[in-house]
Amino acid sequence: MPGNPKGDRRERELVNRLADAGFAPMRAPASGSSTERELPDVICGNGEYGYAIEAKSSAGDPIYIDSEEVTDLQYFAEMLGLSARLAVRFDREPWWFLAPADCHRTDSGTYRIKLPAARSKGLRVDDLTGESKQARLGELDSID
Amino acid sequence: MPGNPKGDRRERELVNRLADAGFAPMRAPASGSSTERELPDVICGNGEYGYAIEAKSSAGDPIYIDSEEVTDLQYFAEMLGLSARLAVRFDREPWWFLAPADCHRTDSGTYRIKLPAARSKGLRVDDLTGESKQARLGELDSID
Repeated sequence: MPGNPKGDRRERELVNRLADAGFAPMRAPASGSSTERELPDVICGNGEYGYAIEAKSSAGDPIYIDSEEVTDLQYFAEMLGLSARLAVRFDREPWWFLAPADCHRTDSGTYRIKLPAARSKGLRVDDLTGESKQARLGELDSID
Repeated sequence: MPGNPKGDRRERELVNRLADAGFAPMRAPASGSSTERELPDVICGNGEYGYAIEAKSSAGDPIYIDSEEVTDLQYFAEMLGLSARLAVRFDREPWWFLAPADCHRTDSGTYRIKLPAARSKGLRVDDLTGESKQARLGELDSID
């Protein structure tokens, strides 16, 4: 994330949290990936679960993610056999992980995640390794 | 690969070749991955096959890869559900992909790949997508 020191710091924090939880994480290069699609911010796996992650942080406002970014994330995830997740980090909150299908979309298709939705529908890092909680994501009705 | 412009150029070339062959590739960041293990140089997948790749190039001399680098590669590959491959590039040769188990190891455990071995045991980029040729790797006897 060039020009976004806080986002960059948050992303390193995310990588460390994933490593602490037993995942092997890898960040995307900052730029120059030489292919046209946008890459995930982080990929990780623990031998059982693997994720391609788009990470966004916010002081408190809703977090918006362009639909094209999510499309690219899902494409890459599918190509690598990983699950696509949006990781959102509000100040004084843990990272919350959401499946794109569980997120609200605006009329233009943009993904919008507010803190209450992140809390109610998201999983924490440590829950990413648990199959039962993992399954939860698909079972919940979509809320805003 | 800081301080290695040619290696860096070769690695970008590899990423482009993989993309041309239908893979979604991602390079590791140049540094600052924030975990202790070394990351693969490139990971890629096409929805069917996925690889974690350590890439090395040489003008003509044998290519040596530390056993620890390969151990880290195999660890990461296993965590992400990918196959570990050593990609070697000699001047005026295509990239050759070898499974670590098919490579000669020196007495100290270092992997050593000479051009004739790369040619006889390696797969080309386009062969990485073919199941039958893929299986070849495991069937060949180890040669030096």
